Amino acid sequence: MRAVDLIRKKRDSEEHTREEIDFLISNYTNGTIPDYQMAAWLMAAWLCGLSRAETAALTEAMLHSGEMVDHSEIPVKKVDKHSTGGVGDKTSLILAPIVAAGGLAVPMISGRGLGHTGGTLDKLEAIPGFRTTLSLAEFHSVLRKCGMALIGQTAEIAPADKKIYALRDATSTVESVGLICASIMSKKLAEGIDALVLDVKTGSGAFMHKEEDAVRLATVMVETAQRIGKKSVALITDMQQPLGRMAGHSNEVIESLDVLRGKGPEDLRRLSIELSAWMFYLGERTASVEAGRQLAEEMIATGRALEKFRQCIALQGGDARIVDDTSLLPAAKHKVEVVSRASGYIADTHCMRFGIALSLLDGGREKKEDQIDPGVGLEFHKRIGDPVQTGERLVTVHYNADRRLAEAQSIIATSFEIASAAPPARPLIRRILGG
Amino acid sequence: MRAVDLIRKKRDSEEHTREEIDFLISNYTNGTIPDYQMAAWLMAAWLCGLSRAETAALTEAMLHSGEMVDHSEIPVKKVDKHSTGGVGDKTSLILAPIVAAGGLAVPMISGRGLGHTGGTLDKLEAIPGFRTTLSLAEFHSVLRKCGMALIGQTAEIAPADKKIYALRDATSTVESVGLICASIMSKKLAEGIDALVLDVKTGSGAFMHKEEDAVRLATVMVETAQRIGKKSVALITDMQQPLGRMAGHSNEVIESLDVLRGKGPEDLRRLSIELSAWMFYLGERTASVEAGRQLAEEMIATGRALEKFRQCIALQGGDARIVDDTSLLPAAKHKVEVVSRASGYIADTHCMRFGIALSLLDGGREKKEDQIDPGVGLEFHKRIGDPVQTGERLVTVHYNADRRLAEAQSIIATSFEIASAAPPARPLIRRILGG
Repeated sequence: MRAVDLIRKKRDSEEHTREEIDFLISNYTNGTIPDYQMAAWLMAAWLCGLSRAETAALTEAMLHSGEMVDHSEIPVKKVDKHSTGGVGDKTSLILAPIVAAGGLAVPMISGRGLGHTGGTLDKLEAIPGFRTTLSLAEFHSVLRKCGMALIGQTAEIAPADKKIYALRDATSTVESVGLICASIMSKKLAEGIDALVLDVKTGSGAFMHKEEDAVRLATVMVETAQRIGKKSVALITDMQQPLGRMAGHSNEVIESLDVLRGKGPEDLRRLSIELSAWMFYLGERTASVEAGRQLAEEMIATGRALEKFRQCIALQGGDARIVDDTSLLPAAKHKVEVVSRASGYIADTHCMRFGIALSLLDGGREKKEDQIDPGVGLEFHKRIGDPVQTGERLVTVHYNADRRLAEAQSIIATSFEIASAAPPARPLIRRILGG
Repeated sequence: MRAVDLIRKKRDSEEHTREEIDFLISNYTNGTIPDYQMAAWLMAAWLCGLSRAETAALTEAMLHSGEMVDHSEIPVKKVDKHSTGGVGDKTSLILAPIVAAGGLAVPMISGRGLGHTGGTLDKLEAIPGFRTTLSLAEFHSVLRKCGMALIGQTAEIAPADKKIYALRDATSTVESVGLICASIMSKKLAEGIDALVLDVKTGSGAFMHKEEDAVRLATVMVETAQRIGKKSVALITDMQQPLGRMAGHSNEVIESLDVLRGKGPEDLRRLSIELSAWMFYLGERTASVEAGRQLAEEMIATGRALEKFRQCIALQGGDARIVDDTSLLPAAKHKVEVVSRASGYIADTHCMRFGIALSLLDGGREKKEDQIDPGVGLEFHKRIGDPVQTGERLVTVHYNADRRLAEAQSIIATSFEIASAAPPARPLIRRILGG
């Protein structure tokens, strides 16, 4: 078998065998196939597509390029959630404690923010002392002790993905359903899980603006998980506006604690409970999704989820006092309000631009190397459908450096569409696939 | 400007500006853009195509990546011919002496054989002592002295093409009209020519099996040459069977000398004269192609073309006595006949397979590194349309090593289609484009 022939095959839109995919991935990972051949193959795959069978084979080959964590000695089902990301999406910080408190194990390997999206690791690191770079042995140990553990990708997990992702980033081959699916799923399945709930975002703040694109990716991911023998469901959820009221790192930890206390905004609370409910159901903790919802509500109402989060923070080296005293989190020094220039109703938002504005205030990364200021953030006062008056505040900006403040304010101010009539209500959960 | 954005642009089938193409090529040549980014761009260009304007810009960028030979002190027009290659295509060895004898200058930079095709350089090197690796100064000097010079690509000529061609070879991005055109034309235009005649082959022994593909490539090449300010014409010619009666290196030198003596097979003689005629016409040596034909015939009839070849061989270090005594050329030790297994008419040939059979006898290269045995060859006794009897010889195989002889014989024997009726006659020159 030769790489040049496999490149030709994909270029000619032919389907690879499992052996061919294994050959490509194992020889690229071990350095036998050079970057330039993989780059050509990736572009051919981007343009000619990958079948469902190829996507599953690619996922498995990338999964098996590294270690799979073995949590089999933990006698409960292991479940996780993956979100395709957006603005203000902090459900991981809420549902992991809920599901762990409810009796399942949540071994969660997360990523960092880039561009307009935040990352779970960055949010956790707003908590003083919180370590996301555990070894796989520590990861297992924390999971065994408290039923949840939240870490970043390690060198042992899917090294093929790490190498391929860097190459895709440099060769404009990121946005391909098959390649995205294999990248996400190979890492998630390496966590040693039995089931995976997917939160695939759609709308102006999501990678997939169009619902049909989100459905296509979700369908492939669910089918890939199932082909590999894992239970999976995908919720297609709305990202036409930020999730919850808060964006920014300390801000999102605070809002997550609010929800774990039974407060917080309705949309964030509802989505966290829905995702938890599906995790309970797929993890066979409850006989139905409805029973999962009830269990999730109960974990909040009894305070057990909040206690679980406190326990996890302490086990991962963080200052657990932040649970009761959020003033211990980094905060921004200054505030400024962005106000409405018109009266009417919020008809729509250009949601991705809020994430970009946050990056301008150092609350996100434009490049991978950028440092994040965890204290800065945005607080949204209006949602789509809300009435608004001229001069009424739309967003409170929490900032430190004012170098790019004016630009950020201008982006925020122009990212709300105001109309004379209220738009139709938007469903938060648009579709459910698989399960 | 960033390479990753240019890759995305081509991936999305958008058209590059001239500045973008210049950026890509100059930065790839100087090593700023890595192989993997160029590989991804090449695959995107292969799959999404290059416009005529992009192809011309690419050709010029590659041309200007190195030196352009300056023959301006030679006071006649400089013309050349390029063929896309096939089996038995030895016209360069015939037309260069004809055109030089007729008063124009032919500064010809040629390539080597690979796969089923032979290469002009390899054929010339069958002549004991013949040096094809002249410096550009020597190249100019030989051209000035005798009106023709035949060398291989040097490091100074289109270095971008050298680097990109190696990458295309390893990434299955060779067969793209735009990329092929830029590769050929950047080298040919660097020769310092005023006009270029293209011989684009079509049929079972050509890279372009289908005539429509040959026409497409020819059209783009002629237009590219014209956009860059060079006169150009393309002849679409038949390669459904070998050109002439001989394939193999010494064999082809011998047959070329036959034509230069006014003998040799009709098809080879005719094509060599047609191509020479167009060179005379585009080089403004004659007022019409017909006058060019007469001049070419005259150069043969008077022996001036043969003398020109003798002079060039001597100037490039070769043993010019081979012109009168071809026994000084390397020869194969053994001969065997491949005979017909049926009676009827030769209806068709799988021409590329003759080239492959020749490679099996070490008369061609399977890989770039392979050494060629110049003495081995094939002598064809039947052409499409000829009657044949069972047991009558089809091909005489001249060989040295018998390691893969049986395989070569079997390939040759099965590469003739024999039918009960004669097929319609095939035109040798199928179309003429540009001019």
